[in-house]
Amino acid sequence: MLRAEVCSSSQLSFLMEAHDGLSAAIAERAGFKGLWASGLSIACSLGYRDANEASWSQLADVVERIVDSSRLPVLVDGDGGFGNFNNARLLARKLHQRGAAGVALEDSCFPKINSFVGDRHPLAEVNEFSGRLRAVKDALAEDFVLVARIEALIGGKGMDQAIMRAHAYADAGADAILIHSRRNAADEIVAFARAWQNKLPLVIVPTKYYRTPASVYREARVSTVIWANHSMRAAMAAMGQVCRRIMTEENTASIEPGIATLDEVFELLRYDELARAEARYLPGQRCGAFHSDGGIDFVGG
Amino acid sequence: MLRAEVCSSSQLSFLMEAHDGLSAAIAERAGFKGLWASGLSIACSLGYRDANEASWSQLADVVERIVDSSRLPVLVDGDGGFGNFNNARLLARKLHQRGAAGVALEDSCFPKINSFVGDRHPLAEVNEFSGRLRAVKDALAEDFVLVARIEALIGGKGMDQAIMRAHAYADAGADAILIHSRRNAADEIVAFARAWQNKLPLVIVPTKYYRTPASVYREARVSTVIWANHSMRAAMAAMGQVCRRIMTEENTASIEPGIATLDEVFELLRYDELARAEARYLPGQRCGAFHSDGGIDFVGG
Amino acid sequence: MLRAEVCSSSQLSFLMEAHDGLSAAIAERAGFKGLWASGLSIACSLGYRDANEASWSQLADVVERIVDSSRLPVLVDGDGGFGNFNNARLLARKLHQRGAAGVALEDSCFPKINSFVGDRHPLAEVNEFSGRLRAVKDALAEDFVLVARIEALIGGKGMDQAIMRAHAYADAGADAILIHSRRNAADEIVAFARAWQNKLPLVIVPTKYYRTPASVYREARVSTVIWANHSMRAAMAAMGQVCRRIMTEENTASIEPGIATLDEVFELLRYDELARAEARYLPGQRCGAFHSDGGIDFVGG
Amino acid sequence: MLRAEVCSSSQLSFLMEAHDGLSAAIAERAGFKGLWASGLSIACSLGYRDANEASWSQLADVVERIVDSSRLPVLVDGDGGFGNFNNARLLARKLHQRGAAGVALEDSCFPKINSFVGDRHPLAEVNEFSGRLRAVKDALAEDFVLVARIEALIGGKGMDQAIMRAHAYADAGADAILIHSRRNAADEIVAFARAWQNKLPLVIVPTKYYRTPASVYREARVSTVIWANHSMRAAMAAMGQVCRRIMTEENTASIEPGIATLDEVFELLRYDELARAEARYLPGQRCGAFHSDGGIDFVGG
Repeated sequence: MLRAEVCSSSQLSFLMEAHDGLSAAIAERAGFKGLWASGLSIACSLGYRDANEASWSQLADVVERIVDSSRLPVLVDGDGGFGNFNNARLLARKLHQRGAAGVALEDSCFPKINSFVGDRHPLAEVNEFSGRLRAVKDALAEDFVLVARIEALIGGKGMDQAIMRAHAYADAGADAILIHSRRNAADEIVAFARAWQNKLPLVIVPTKYYRTPASVYREARVSTVIWANHSMRAAMAAMGQVCRRIMTEENTASIEPGIATLDEVFELLRYDELARAEARYLPGQRCGAFHSDGGIDFVGG
Repeated sequence: MLRAEVCSSSQLSFLMEAHDGLSAAIAERAGFKGLWASGLSIACSLGYRDANEASWSQLADVVERIVDSSRLPVLVDGDGGFGNFNNARLLARKLHQRGAAGVALEDSCFPKINSFVGDRHPLAEVNEFSGRLRAVKDALAEDFVLVARIEALIGGKGMDQAIMRAHAYADAGADAILIHSRRNAADEIVAFARAWQNKLPLVIVPTKYYRTPASVYREARVSTVIWANHSMRAAMAAMGQVCRRIMTEENTASIEPGIATLDEVFELLRYDELARAEARYLPGQRCGAFHSDGGIDFVGG
Repeated sequence: MLRAEVCSSSQLSFLMEAHDGLSAAIAERAGFKGLWASGLSIACSLGYRDANEASWSQLADVVERIVDSSRLPVLVDGDGGFGNFNNARLLARKLHQRGAAGVALEDSCFPKINSFVGDRHPLAEVNEFSGRLRAVKDALAEDFVLVARIEALIGGKGMDQAIMRAHAYADAGADAILIHSRRNAADEIVAFARAWQNKLPLVIVPTKYYRTPASVYREARVSTVIWANHSMRAAMAAMGQVCRRIMTEENTASIEPGIATLDEVFELLRYDELARAEARYLPGQRCGAFHSDGGIDFVGG
Repeated sequence: MLRAEVCSSSQLSFLMEAHDGLSAAIAERAGFKGLWASGLSIACSLGYRDANEASWSQLADVVERIVDSSRLPVLVDGDGGFGNFNNARLLARKLHQRGAAGVALEDSCFPKINSFVGDRHPLAEVNEFSGRLRAVKDALAEDFVLVARIEALIGGKGMDQAIMRAHAYADAGADAILIHSRRNAADEIVAFARAWQNKLPLVIVPTKYYRTPASVYREARVSTVIWANHSMRAAMAAMGQVCRRIMTEENTASIEPGIATLDEVFELLRYDELARAEARYLPGQRCGAFHSDGGIDFVGG
């Protein structure tokens, strides 16, 4: 299903970011057909920096919650694979086991370090990174999607380097190419798409060049657009506003109209299924000596 | 510090809900002096129902992220303790180890079951629950705060039962009493406070009776008010709106002004500390052969 | 495959206990065809008591290591399911996701408590426990094996109660019945088997009546024998002896002949596969600037 | 306490390997005064290879079980810190939080790769590794012990390189130096000790040169000897023997005399404490409607 979404260039697909179970359920409800388990958003949610502070197994635990909270295919942002080929294939196996539909690996090294200035962005050696891709392909079943993410444009290495890498990663078995750009316009992406000639499906992340209309991507025969961190950023803004108002007003009355009701929470997370299951599997046990419902759910403790 | 916040009745304190690292950092930034690690919100964030689906160790993992993401004291919603006295004291020890400042235990049994109808809410036996409280007090250091949460009013057992239980739990060693009510007005809480006569500090959760002004609580000499799930509900509403708009518009341009910028994300989660630390501990390594920064953070992958 | 092992009464099968990855690999190497992820042994390995101190997710993490360390089907000791029907089905789903082939649920309540004296062993109500079984069957795929474990004989409830429960659990969908006995001879088990008349395959755990030859079980048409904790107990004895000798001798020379060599360790855990994979996926990278082998494995750090 | 053990050269101390809660409890019972949470043994126990397959958070989880299962100080084998300075200090903070008394970091890079042939062992750059040490010292409290492990001799870099590194790591803030050797005799270690002149306490791991009597280490003024993997290797041998015998004999009668009894298991893991606590915190609840003891512990399920 993710293969159909991500790897088909016949029509443009969209993946929505999720960073926990709640954001996954919300994205599904809004109509999205696939999810992007974003490394940045997950790190933020955990209170980590996006610098490989969270371990690969902590990532896998979050992915499990995302997968379990919707029926959508989930493409996981696997950074560089958390080490070498051996770490990358272990990560991919574990993500697959938790129900992910695919992983995107980028040609960076471990750990990522942060850079607030400068354009010097060392990339992984092509052969070494291709080895990671091949190891993942060999270790996983056919239906697990492997996206190779190219950081060459981000790293200021130029278009030729990016195209060269795309070919190498295609040869190594990638199912799709994610080309990343930090420019404010889509020109770089479009140029890449033209040069690439659709050898493999293209995936893009228009975080910076967000003003570009989708028609440009369709024309460029992009396969998939990832909205990479917008749920997290929406949550962050909303929580900040609500916190500041409650702090000031010492009361939640004025914010109630703008936030989800508890009934909406219960509906989204299928509390009704639990109630029906209780009726089915706990007959006559509603007041059983060893149970208590406490009514807590209704008062939002 | 939590002791001072929660257990002092000289002035009214407020705890803000957090369910992950991000919401914790946001609440601190907004000026709150303490956090409530809400069982309901954490369950929602994980995509679980608030019916003891998440394990106690999964709760502890989330609490660790909350604690590590701010400098605020964190009071953890420990439900009923995830079993009997032995589970409760193990939970408390582990929460303490992860840095929590205290735990609130409620007089329900394990597991909670959900109830969409009815008022039959069986409570734990007073002696059995008091044993849980005593076990926690005996197992933990003095500075770890133990709040006893009374579900008697929620369970329709009446005021006498609630007061009786409060006395029993005080005798068992609780540091504060959390009295819960599902009414839309604060009358029940106020009546309890009057009858209780401040034998121990009082904690309340005005999720249902949110229209009550804080002055009422001050007058009733309540010690602490918990805003129990509002960050989660704000995030839920905001993520839903953003998802629906992106789904419709196939573009994020119109939502950008309303969501947090990446710079705000980096600032809140102290990416500057990482940059400074790199300068200090990785001198001359910015282009080191085994590192890569990828610049990913700046383009929001 | 576990179905074939556990649920076939045409021939007697054996499951060997495992409590971590190492013990799983060892049991496979010794020729066993299936594994028993023992609650007691796993608890001991973790340093917990077998009283539901370990959470269900900690159990799932251990099971994952057991599964990944051999190719054998793994039947997991799921205690009573860690709560009610909802916890039980969640546990079963998660064990299945980690690769377990089945789960055994016992008709006890949560949490287990320890008893050094007395015969008063309250059991779960038949209907309530049957609900747990039905919920698991409905939630899991056909090939996931569900074993219903009967504690009635252990609990001193008598043979009629045990048989009655076996019929109820069969009706609820169990694939096999595990009948437990604390007697030193197999008479109780044999009597049960005779009365049961093989309505469903029988599983036994001859920890106490270990002197009974397997021919007795074959004659009684038992389907599966579980050697429930012997690897853990062997490890415990051996580690104690070695520790005491090293403590006394301040040297390991005299114990070296009796313990596994590092080469045996590397061979069992397939370090050769890693070496071959490095040759395949890391061509020319053996001295790469961002790698180090350290040779640690050879000196046993 | 670990500081006293590891960092005092007035008398020779010994740390015994532990890889789980059980092995920790056994080592304490045998009289050891400190534990070594071995990377190799923990990896083996988990069924991973000692090539940074286990994540740092999985290591932290195991360390927690080791710490909780004895009252001994635990020195953790932290490999190279699981990445750069930032990963190393996060690891150290988390190990400290779980109760570890110290960490040993080695001057290798991430991930370790396996080498069955050859002597080409690239080491971390001195300045880069020193940055890791400084970051850990700055992040942790004074009482957390930091051991710098030198792989130069293992890596065939010679004595001068090893001594140079020891001085650099001492300057970076290490509390002790672990010098590793893969030779079958202690000559290299003794030579190092002589050249080092005890500038900082010395820690050694005589896995290969195990025939050397402790008097040699005392004479060389070594501070601490680590028995690095012998409990794991003892367990492995014993489990293999027991599995093979049970496989052959279809019976456990002949192995019973050689393995730990269940009573020994219960005694070591303090089931008596649980029984006493039940008497104290669950008065009159032994037959409570929501409990069951099942007697399982006694029959070894």
